[in-house]
Amino acid sequence: MDKIYGGIEAGGTKFVCVAATSPDQIFAEERFPTTTPKETIQRAIDFFSTYQAIHHVKLSALGVGSFGPLDPNPISDTFGYITSTPKPGWKNTDLLGPLQAALNVPIAFDTDVNAAAIVEGLWGAAQGLDNYLYFTIGTGVGGGAIINGKPLHGLIHPEMGHIRLKHDLALDPFEGNCPYHGDCFEGLVSGPALEKRFGQPAYTLSADDPAWDLTAHYIALAMSDFICSFSPQRIILGGGVMQQAQLFPLIHQKTLEYLNGYVQSPQILEAIEDFIVSPALGNQAGMLGSIAMAMQVL
Amino acid sequence: MDKIYGGIEAGGTKFVCVAATSPDQIFAEERFPTTTPKETIQRAIDFFSTYQAIHHVKLSALGVGSFGPLDPNPISDTFGYITSTPKPGWKNTDLLGPLQAALNVPIAFDTDVNAAAIVEGLWGAAQGLDNYLYFTIGTGVGGGAIINGKPLHGLIHPEMGHIRLKHDLALDPFEGNCPYHGDCFEGLVSGPALEKRFGQPAYTLSADDPAWDLTAHYIALAMSDFICSFSPQRIILGGGVMQQAQLFPLIHQKTLEYLNGYVQSPQILEAIEDFIVSPALGNQAGMLGSIAMAMQVL
Repeated sequence: MDKIYGGIEAGGTKFVCVAATSPDQIFAEERFPTTTPKETIQRAIDFFSTYQAIHHVKLSALGVGSFGPLDPNPISDTFGYITSTPKPGWKNTDLLGPLQAALNVPIAFDTDVNAAAIVEGLWGAAQGLDNYLYFTIGTGVGGGAIINGKPLHGLIHPEMGHIRLKHDLALDPFEGNCPYHGDCFEGLVSGPALEKRFGQPAYTLSADDPAWDLTAHYIALAMSDFICSFSPQRIILGGGVMQQAQLFPLIHQKTLEYLNGYVQSPQILEAIEDFIVSPALGNQAGMLGSIAMAMQVL
Repeated sequence: MDKIYGGIEAGGTKFVCVAATSPDQIFAEERFPTTTPKETIQRAIDFFSTYQAIHHVKLSALGVGSFGPLDPNPISDTFGYITSTPKPGWKNTDLLGPLQAALNVPIAFDTDVNAAAIVEGLWGAAQGLDNYLYFTIGTGVGGGAIINGKPLHGLIHPEMGHIRLKHDLALDPFEGNCPYHGDCFEGLVSGPALEKRFGQPAYTLSADDPAWDLTAHYIALAMSDFICSFSPQRIILGGGVMQQAQLFPLIHQKTLEYLNGYVQSPQILEAIEDFIVSPALGNQAGMLGSIAMAMQVL
């Protein structure tokens, strides 16, 4: 019998729990809002416990791709915790411990963006690449880096949404909405930042609203910075804000403008539309990533 | 008999050629200015040819750590070339080809900052670490990343000096001096940028000149960005500008201020002076790095 894997996409807004034998064989799925840690984690445990009881099976492994910041270091005392998150009630929450205690399976634990990055490499827009970046630009902004085929953790894990961008306050006095950094990448282009700046939810703006040009300006500045920092083979831009397809051509054009020919790669200079791309797995990436992580942990 | 390794630190200002059996056994060294490609490369070839002839030995391998941008991809048609450099006369120069043809040895070829990063990991300030960054802040600004123990190349190689920093032009109207990007990291804090801004060579400014506070401000903004991007275990800051020791405490304090507690690691929050450090090998790092690369290529 095929192994059954569990996956949790632990988002700041909602949790998605799945049981699957592979990414195209998903047998059960449940979505529920992220409320208190206790209630939310218990609901995830109940999902898997019930699935196991009904089907008389045992999960072989569980993958958890979570919002953060979190502690992904297996030898740390706080491995599996969500740490300095601004999300109310979730600071210093042990997410992994209760799952481990209740389900008693091997668990892979990483950031939601690393989960998405991993699965885009396996089955999505970065197949065959060893070095690429995945960003989500939505409620928050986060980035995951795959370097030499493996997710980058380093000291903790990257927090790519919190780099500060070139920002001329005389031309654009909007001070951003990041509680830690004001006008960092996230503070300028996350969904809530756009809503604060433009006075209405970004998705209610028409596709030719000048707001998108300004938004693309900052995203392209970030792309230029990340190309200089990481020299990636490709960049995938996902998340709610990037559902606005009109952003891509603007980002392509402006990224080339801001790099100004310095990085002499035909992949960038001649085919930027294949270099900065949409996720192939769309909003399934986080959930599929959690399954991929579970499959890799064994 | 011990193997003899050749090393070339190929800088934009000078070349350093060495023959050694190990980093502490250097038998011959020559330094000469970087003039035209033809003359400079021939002088390097002559150094090694002469050394081999006099001592009746053959180099086992050669390591070349070079200024760039360059092409470090062994399967590329322009492997070993210096590519889009602004240095007059050196654009699209085949550096490796003539060395290979004349000396006929295995050659390791990488950026000067990767060479320095490698050797600081082996024998310097990053011993025992798998993920760290090395920057040189001098005539130009460049950075090398060691990720999971290996230098990051990605598509080509990083150009970390060319990220753009948060820069309030109303408060600080200096527009930078990078010919490609104006006020990027290099355009704001390289030696020539400081000289242009302050009207005198930076090393002639007194240690308590307010110039250093402003310089530390931009370097700390870059550190904050790179900590968010790479989550390194340590950052090494070398190069001529960083010989100004008074910069370090300013950079430490401002980096903490700009991160604003978001990255909750004791290595950063409690021991920033051990997190952003000087190179242990000082201005020897490039030369020693070229030997380390030669030793590793076999």
